[in-house]
Order: sequence, then structure tokens, then C-alpha cells
Amino acid sequence: MKFTTEKLVRFHHCDPAGIVFYPQFYVLLHEVQEDFLAHIGFPEHKMVEGGTGVPIVDMKTEFLGMCRHGDVLTMTLELSRIGGASLGMHYEIHASAQAPGAPSALKLRADGVVVYSQVPHGKAVRIPDDLRDALLPYLQAHPETP
Amino acid sequence: MKFTTEKLVRFHHCDPAGIVFYPQFYVLLHEVQEDFLAHIGFPEHKMVEGGTGVPIVDMKTEFLGMCRHGDVLTMTLELSRIGGASLGMHYEIHASAQAPGAPSALKLRADGVVVYSQVPHGKAVRIPDDLRDALLPYLQAHPETP
Amino acid sequence: MKFTTEKLVRFHHCDPAGIVFYPQFYVLLHEVQEDFLAHIGFPEHKMVEGGTGVPIVDMKTEFLGMCRHGDVLTMTLELSRIGGASLGMHYEIHASAQAPGAPSALKLRADGVVVYSQVPHGKAVRIPDDLRDALLPYLQAHPETP
Amino acid sequence: MKFTTEKLVRFHHCDPAGIVFYPQFYVLLHEVQEDFLAHIGFPEHKMVEGGTGVPIVDMKTEFLGMCRHGDVLTMTLELSRIGGASLGMHYEIHASAQAPGAPSALKLRADGVVVYSQVPHGKAVRIPDDLRDALLPYLQAHPETP
Repeated sequence: MKFTTEKLVRFHHCDPAGIVFYPQFYVLLHEVQEDFLAHIGFPEHKMVEGGTGVPIVDMKTEFLGMCRHGDVLTMTLELSRIGGASLGMHYEIHASAQAPGAPSALKLRADGVVVYSQVPHGKAVRIPDDLRDALLPYLQAHPETP
Repeated sequence: MKFTTEKLVRFHHCDPAGIVFYPQFYVLLHEVQEDFLAHIGFPEHKMVEGGTGVPIVDMKTEFLGMCRHGDVLTMTLELSRIGGASLGMHYEIHASAQAPGAPSALKLRADGVVVYSQVPHGKAVRIPDDLRDALLPYLQAHPETP
Repeated sequence: MKFTTEKLVRFHHCDPAGIVFYPQFYVLLHEVQEDFLAHIGFPEHKMVEGGTGVPIVDMKTEFLGMCRHGDVLTMTLELSRIGGASLGMHYEIHASAQAPGAPSALKLRADGVVVYSQVPHGKAVRIPDDLRDALLPYLQAHPETP
Repeated sequence: MKFTTEKLVRFHHCDPAGIVFYPQFYVLLHEVQEDFLAHIGFPEHKMVEGGTGVPIVDMKTEFLGMCRHGDVLTMTLELSRIGGASLGMHYEIHASAQAPGAPSALKLRADGVVVYSQVPHGKAVRIPDDLRDALLPYLQAHPETP
């Protein structure tokens, strides 16, 4: 199952070339992670209050097309792997061109690895069973990413 | 030859866990790119005024250690490849622990690919010879990255 | 009439003290301005495409209470003044404490002045009549601000 | 005495109109505060480690001219008031036009009030004497601001 959410390309995401400044895509990907964790019942601010978090250890990103102020982004997240403490996260961003009837195009593909950890010191800890159960429906049957 | 610059981890780079919020590393990497292009005589704001830019198409990042508010980062950039229009950029970030005499540790390794392009429409164009000559000293003899 | 929208305090808005980093409130206020202009039929990205914008010339802000990751913000915008080219914008942010049943509290009050202008050179131009008509319902009858 | 520092307008500060996105000015003002506190021997990250901070309660800003990517900003900070727990901070930003020999112009004037407080709960505490002594040389003899 994919977790899907829509985001708007805001003025503050865009640079003097009129397109999304690429670090802002990571802010948006992090918003998707936040929305996902809240959706499955484990909001990130509760995690942090409880002394854990999911710091990132690896991220691979392909930027396949430019996004502009006013574009509506359809962002998806699936899990490519659920390990002992680590999670593989596969993101895609599609955008509709602003012309009516224009098809949606894949703009970005990203694969991140985060590790369930104690914060702030970063010691990896095993993903607890209730969180694991909530994550499981989003595990890809046939991960596309190596 | 490596281009080297120092950056400070600022309050605004850090998150509620007290460490650098990972998208902020990309803002810092972009600052290094800006500093590098200015250093070799091709400041990015002049490029953009002239109708070109270097949008990113690929980025791979390993996050190897946490960085905290007040850390001094030594950031390096070398070119892993100079193509017709594309550039491979290899970044490393080392940080000294704040304790005096503490050794410096590798915190982040990143490989980006940017494409010299017309902005805002993004058509790739051949890197002009004067820019190519200025880039050449920073090409790795034996690129570490595949 | 007030324009009202809800925003979530995101992880990326917050600082190492666990509260909203104050410049991020201005990013949120700008989002409200964007949402408002889109709501009345004048989306900011269309304005910019058409060569106009609303750069800010003055901003006064009272920070009345801390906001934290996960807080839901109710943000309102009214117009305190519609001039020839300038607009007075009065913003308020209320937040509910996260405890169930907790009352909502005023966290921020801001008064900005923006000027309808040609971009990028910033020459003020008279607000066109269709935009003026769309703004009028949001003008405060009895502005609270001097 | 004025505390003075230079900052560069970065690509990431600028918006699709090619000028500094106004919330980024507050990030820059906060950098000046950080630089100032480090300069007088009270770096903000040490404060936060020690359980105190200087959250903002009031900010008034006049935006007097646009700043663009590549502009060099001369930023000054003086204290308009040193109270029991609160500090009045008066900032100015001047920028040189990029044309050689062009005069510098005042681009922004801001007056902030911060309160020395326990973090994260925000209880105001009296500014300790050693910090007070370090602040005193930067107090304006004749504050310009009411």
C-alpha cells in the first residue's frame, strides 16, 4: 500500500530561477514522513517526547523534472524494507502541469534509509512491535529499489 | 585539487533533537557550490543573470554522524566528472568535536550531478571553454565514486 | 470578514529549544497571504507571471506565546487598510494546547504593509479594480491597529 | 559601540522575484545575534546547553530597499535597552549595489525585544551579571528607537 498526500509548491520553496530550490524537496519529503507517521498513529512529536526519533543515514534522489510555484504535487511513500532498526523509504513526486487536462509527470524519485534511534545521542534501537505492525501494510511486495 | 571552506552549524540549521535537520545539509552543500563557483570566477548570480544555471539531476548522500549547533564544519568539493554539459560533484563534511583536541570526523559524503542549462526552461547546453578551464584543476585524478 | 486557515507546526519549523524558530512564523504568515490571494482569485504565481507582486515594506509582530511541534495553528488575516497601492494586513495566530479540551490561546499578532508593485524592480502601481473589489470584503470595519 | 558583521545574500535567500524572501532577513538577523553573543563570550549553543535562551517577544521591521543574490550586506547590532531580563536590539542592514563605486544604502531597520529565559518553558530570569557586563558596551547612549 502507498501512503499518498498532496502538497502545493509554495513561493518560499522557489528560487530566483522560478523553480523549487532542491533542498526544499527534502523539507517536503520530511513533511510526507511526518504525515505518514501521524497517519499510522505514531506522530513524530510524540516519538521525540518519548526520547526516540528516526534520523536519516542514507538518501538517493533523482530529480526528473522541474517543479514551479503553484504546482500541485502528489507525493507517495512506500517502505522498501523494514529491518531491525532501519527503514527503507521510497518516495515519488508527480506533478500536474498547470494547463488544464495536462498529464501528470514523475518529477522526483527518492530512496531514504532512516534508523529508529534514541535521541539526541543516536543509539539505534529495535523498532517496537506496535510500530512495526503499523508500518507493515506499507511494505512493498516487490521493492523496485535495490 | 579540493575546494575547501568552513561553515558554522547555526541555530537555524538544527531541529528539536538538537542536531542538523538533514535538508539543511543540502542548503550548506549549495553554499559550498556557490562559494566554489565564485572562487573560480563564475559567480552563480552572474550565471543566472546571463540566462544559465546548474540545476541538479542526481544526489546521493551518506549521513555518517550527527552535527550539532556550534560545530565547525570543514566542507570540501572536488569534481568527479566533467562531461559535455554535466558535472559530477563530490562533497565531504568533516566536523571537529567541540572538546579541545578532539579529532575531526567524517560526517557526510555526497555525490551530486548538475547540468549546465538554460534557465528557467532547463535545456542542457555545453559547458563553455572558459568555465571548463576553470573547473579542470578540481577534477579528481582517481574519482572515488562510481 | 476574516480569512481563516489552519496550519500544522512542523518538525522543520522548530528549533533546538523545541519551539517554533521565529523566522518560520513569517514563512507561515506568507503561506496565509498566498492562500488568501488564491482564495480571492488572484494566486501569487499568476501575479508574478504577470509582472507584479506584493513586496513587504513594514512588519510589526508581537510574539505572545510559544508554539511547539504538533500544535495546530488557526491563522486569520484581515485587511486593516486598502490604499492606492498599499495594503495593511492584520494577522493573528491562535493555537490549541495539545491537551484535549484545552482552550485556544493567542500566540502571535502581526501587522504588515505590502505594496502592489512591478517585479523585479519594485515600482508601486495602483491596485487594479478587480483585485480591489476582491479585497474589499476583508477590510476591517474598525481597524484595531493604529 | 556597534557590533558589525558582513553577510552575503545567498541563492537560497532569494525568491522567484530574484530578491531576498523577507522571512530570510530574520534568519540573517538571528545569525547576527548568534555572532554577537559568541563575540562577547556567550555563544548561544552554550546558553541552550545551560538551560537558558533568548526567545523573542517583539519585532518591528522596516524594509527600505530590495536586496538581491550576490549583494554584500553590512549588518549592525546595538542594544537600545538592557532591562532586568529583556534586551532591546536595534539592527540595520546596509548593502552596496554591485556596481563598483556605488554607494551603500540602508535596506532594513529592525527593533527586536528578546527575554533572557529558561528554555524550553520560557520563564524569564534576570540577566546574570557577567552577561550584563559583556552587553553593556553595546548599549546605545541615545537610543534612536522609542
